[in-house]
Amino acid sequence: MDQYLKEQKAWIDEKIYTKINEFTSEGRLRDSIIYSMKAGGKRLRPMLMKATFESFSDSDPLYVSPAVALEMLHTYTLIHDDLPAMDDDDMRRGRWTNHIEFDEATAILAGDSLLTMSFELISSDPSLSSEQKVFIVHQLSRAAGPKGMVAGQMWDMQYEDLETDVDTLKRIHSNKTGKLIAFSIITGGYLAGLEEGKLQKLKEIGEAVGLIFQIQDDILDVTGDTAKLGKATGSDESNLKSTYPKLLGLEGAKQEKQKYERRVEELLGDLEADETPLADLIGYMSQREY
Amino acid sequence: MDQYLKEQKAWIDEKIYTKINEFTSEGRLRDSIIYSMKAGGKRLRPMLMKATFESFSDSDPLYVSPAVALEMLHTYTLIHDDLPAMDDDDMRRGRWTNHIEFDEATAILAGDSLLTMSFELISSDPSLSSEQKVFIVHQLSRAAGPKGMVAGQMWDMQYEDLETDVDTLKRIHSNKTGKLIAFSIITGGYLAGLEEGKLQKLKEIGEAVGLIFQIQDDILDVTGDTAKLGKATGSDESNLKSTYPKLLGLEGAKQEKQKYERRVEELLGDLEADETPLADLIGYMSQREY
Repeated sequence: MDQYLKEQKAWIDEKIYTKINEFTSEGRLRDSIIYSMKAGGKRLRPMLMKATFESFSDSDPLYVSPAVALEMLHTYTLIHDDLPAMDDDDMRRGRWTNHIEFDEATAILAGDSLLTMSFELISSDPSLSSEQKVFIVHQLSRAAGPKGMVAGQMWDMQYEDLETDVDTLKRIHSNKTGKLIAFSIITGGYLAGLEEGKLQKLKEIGEAVGLIFQIQDDILDVTGDTAKLGKATGSDESNLKSTYPKLLGLEGAKQEKQKYERRVEELLGDLEADETPLADLIGYMSQREY
Repeated sequence: MDQYLKEQKAWIDEKIYTKINEFTSEGRLRDSIIYSMKAGGKRLRPMLMKATFESFSDSDPLYVSPAVALEMLHTYTLIHDDLPAMDDDDMRRGRWTNHIEFDEATAILAGDSLLTMSFELISSDPSLSSEQKVFIVHQLSRAAGPKGMVAGQMWDMQYEDLETDVDTLKRIHSNKTGKLIAFSIITGGYLAGLEEGKLQKLKEIGEAVGLIFQIQDDILDVTGDTAKLGKATGSDESNLKSTYPKLLGLEGAKQEKQKYERRVEELLGDLEADETPLADLIGYMSQREY
């Protein structure tokens, strides 16, 4: 799996850097965009899109621009989330965050640029039909907007110092991380030509994978290895923020995760996709150690 | 003209508020979005789109979503530009800016929301064809991105304390304000069914109108009436920022503006659009006192 992930990441990275050069002008703004895009992300979202496509189609890849656009949009959220007014993080993945390496104004504009570019990229891809472009722009803007990811980020901040319950936690994460992960899987299946009923199942898989991912994140904060994670563990412990292990205990959190894993297995079975790149990648994400 | 502007504004406002309620969930984020969308903007960009459409077509209006999307996107730029890390403005049009009325994090997310919603709005409009949606998403994302408006904003900050020349000033404003104004005019013409050659002329008109608008802004900062403008005049004088009057003198700035006005007249003549809502609106914008 490690070799596969490495190859996939290299492939996506190359596409990303080409597109950034094409869609920006030289200067400090481009430098800051490239800085954050090269900050060592795992590229899990583009990989999920690619793996889903390849699980259901052996046609020419149609997912290149949507996958790169998704990673750009994801990177915009990281840059803005790290800002002093938001999570106020100086370090991410062992490097200075964008506003520390550059400055706050540049970081705000780099994020704004990446969000805007993601739509430019999709809408200008000659290998997609107009219908495909509209479907993807619509899905992505819904997933990322104020009834999706931005709402999740807003609630996440509002509940930072409040006791909460599992339902609220689920609602926050379904929006903050789940909807973009679901987007990656839905889009991969859509471009592979799956019909509506199957896309609905993929949507449910995507939402479950988003929660699995988040619960695993919370678990790793308790049990993880600082060196592998590239960030301090126990940080959730030291603030009031609710997490799955805090609300359910470590075993309870693991059981909650297993519940979603079983549902995903069931849905993958319905789609006859038990032994596909998508199934493998979800398995990896669910067990990841960093 | 005043009555016309008032009616147009009321029409656009109503569409905006309906769409915001549809595309957001209740809560602080929606409140802050509505706060800034209701902050008394003149709605010149949507009006330009509408006036252009009506100058070349008497079909059913197709421009409603693109016009509202454009005003949302414009409002996002105001919210982010006002942030402490950017222009650090506490007041806009006689009211607190978004980050003062709410807080910085909310203002950042309200801006992000509006930018994202603008693409959601266009891509989900049932009265537009897929080709029309793709054209508009593509034009808007190009105009607003890091080879357009965001680049202009970045340069504007970088040159804030530097002496500059007219060419640089023009490049900054062409990107910072010109490209979105050009977008409004191009899109109005495109939706009215104009062919490529005519759209090129509209593009040139749009770019000239953007510069006329900016030069007039600079002139008003010297000669304007504080009460009418709703902001202090002379603010450009008190910092190092280059303006047309500073570089060319007040008379020189007026002549520069007239140069673009004559070019616009010529192009409107080529398009046989001398006596249209578009020509009237441009005339008003060029002479506006606030």
